[in-house]
Amino acid sequence: MPPEAMSEKTENTLSACPMPIGQYTQIVMAHGGGGRLMQQLLERLVRPAFANPHLDQRHDSTVFEVGGNRLAFTTDGYVVKPLFFPGGDIGKLAVCGTLNDLAMSGAKPLFLSAALVIEEGFPVNDLARVLASMNATAQAAGAAIVTGDTKVVENGKGDGLYIATSGIGLIEHGLQIAPAGIREGDAILLSGDIGRHGVAIIAEREGLGFETTVESDCADLSGLVGQLLRAGVELHCLRDLTRGGLAAAVLELAGDAGFDMELSESAIPVAAPVRSACEILGFDPLYVANEGRMVLFVPASAVGRALDVLHAHPLGHDACLIGRVGSVGKGKVSLRNPYDIVRVLDLPSGEQLPRIC
Amino acid sequence: MPPEAMSEKTENTLSACPMPIGQYTQIVMAHGGGGRLMQQLLERLVRPAFANPHLDQRHDSTVFEVGGNRLAFTTDGYVVKPLFFPGGDIGKLAVCGTLNDLAMSGAKPLFLSAALVIEEGFPVNDLARVLASMNATAQAAGAAIVTGDTKVVENGKGDGLYIATSGIGLIEHGLQIAPAGIREGDAILLSGDIGRHGVAIIAEREGLGFETTVESDCADLSGLVGQLLRAGVELHCLRDLTRGGLAAAVLELAGDAGFDMELSESAIPVAAPVRSACEILGFDPLYVANEGRMVLFVPASAVGRALDVLHAHPLGHDACLIGRVGSVGKGKVSLRNPYDIVRVLDLPSGEQLPRIC
Repeated sequence: MPPEAMSEKTENTLSACPMPIGQYTQIVMAHGGGGRLMQQLLERLVRPAFANPHLDQRHDSTVFEVGGNRLAFTTDGYVVKPLFFPGGDIGKLAVCGTLNDLAMSGAKPLFLSAALVIEEGFPVNDLARVLASMNATAQAAGAAIVTGDTKVVENGKGDGLYIATSGIGLIEHGLQIAPAGIREGDAILLSGDIGRHGVAIIAEREGLGFETTVESDCADLSGLVGQLLRAGVELHCLRDLTRGGLAAAVLELAGDAGFDMELSESAIPVAAPVRSACEILGFDPLYVANEGRMVLFVPASAVGRALDVLHAHPLGHDACLIGRVGSVGKGKVSLRNPYDIVRVLDLPSGEQLPRIC
Repeated sequence: MPPEAMSEKTENTLSACPMPIGQYTQIVMAHGGGGRLMQQLLERLVRPAFANPHLDQRHDSTVFEVGGNRLAFTTDGYVVKPLFFPGGDIGKLAVCGTLNDLAMSGAKPLFLSAALVIEEGFPVNDLARVLASMNATAQAAGAAIVTGDTKVVENGKGDGLYIATSGIGLIEHGLQIAPAGIREGDAILLSGDIGRHGVAIIAEREGLGFETTVESDCADLSGLVGQLLRAGVELHCLRDLTRGGLAAAVLELAGDAGFDMELSESAIPVAAPVRSACEILGFDPLYVANEGRMVLFVPASAVGRALDVLHAHPLGHDACLIGRVGSVGKGKVSLRNPYDIVRVLDLPSGEQLPRIC
């Protein structure tokens, strides 16, 4: 066999082989869970498949320039279960999620799209409620849902309703708000208490009757980010907390930016009913999903001004300084507890709570 | 009861009532079928919920202006079954669909996004194939997939893989290529033979062995539209043929633009294997889905030049003149057969073939 034919044969054989992600040749729930397996799916399969410099921005939205204007572009799919929960529904969640991804680049949201995958048998009235909720949330942010698509799948091939939203926003500031903007010594601020969304979802899904009903924190952060920018706060990086919670967000940023970071456990606010629900369920609030909270990376000199703006806004009144960016490193995130004991955080490997968003 | 209380009561009762679309209080497959029921869902529920002037453009993509630049924005969900079929797969289909929606505004595709909803148990190798196909199709069009999202749902809550793609394109011409651009006397051109995608899908899905394997026409039309624009062809409106086929596309445009139209049945090319498959299946090729064909509305004076450009391109070599725009009307579309008998076309009410795209 001539060498060319052999090498061709080898290539064909290789491309026909199942391509595993870690030990997996099939997708498991944890590949969507915001933890290490999702990171492996993205790093080993999705990013290499689509390799381009825009993906290397490693941010919630991609920023590009058209005719001297900087625009942000983002997309997300929503498969939350149940569709209606205390504090929101899949429609509000989808629109807030997209608005927040735009806001994390400091973009003013302009236009949104919605692609619906509806399961046969889904009540028209529920669909109407979700659409109304989407529109109200978009309008409140000054954005409009301008294009969409509707598909129907057979009963048993969906779960009521899945929504994918995309968004375009306009960047009117001159900053580079992105992981690459993080600097040694930056302060890490948190916009509010954590864990509400995850607890609200699990309580509603499993019919758990906690003493106090915990509402999801599901909210649009674009207005708050706009106020920070107008106040001239020097924002280095923003990240909203979703799947994987505060821990996953900070770990991802530490890894992508290439800095070690330290958080103070006692500074991180967790509301009493969320804390007690987490204790009952065996969850660590640091890893529980949020949908209306963000971490902010600002230079130490900007902390006072940033907190002033945050505290004056309904979505930031519990904001606080929770940590600092250390020196260049491999992205180690340490959590210091009140007894000065330091625990190194890790991405969850598996799935704490599926279908959270 | 005072009148105010009464009227409040009535309103509450009304808003709690199921809101039917036609006689339906639950979504049925035909609400996603490209026919009359889908139109009712969009007109009675989705458009009113999101009411804004951009939706009133009634086109495949929405056009907006940012800093003097015109951009097009579009989204689509894909639930095609099976995921792999002769001539393509869900990845190629999703990217082509979004490229085509941008092309229908004459936009050059720039950036795409992809939101994946993956069913637990889906083979990683199949996912890799689909992602490679998406990337190859985008790259060939000079576009990049720049942002994305991945969700996983439990086994039995999906059907392998659903994809929602969105796209942003740049409009570099000065034309208004949209339903509102259609004029009385415009020629209606068709870029190629019809019905291939629908026949390819049903044959693969049902394991039907026709004498000749029909391949889907799934293709990106953005290059061809770019050539028409560069050749200076005055394009009034473009529409790619998808769910509901040629008939649904022309009926929708006739209704939205407010003109009656006439098509010549004998001028509409249908390949022999597609025609015989349709005869066996009881399908009318006019209503069968396509994924790489479009109708073009041009002034009569531009027909020669348009056909020259079309015929010189691999995706347009069978292009032909198939009809004319008549006078202002309610959107009646007549089909004249070779015996000069005229049949008035209507939107299909139900579902000819679900999960075609």
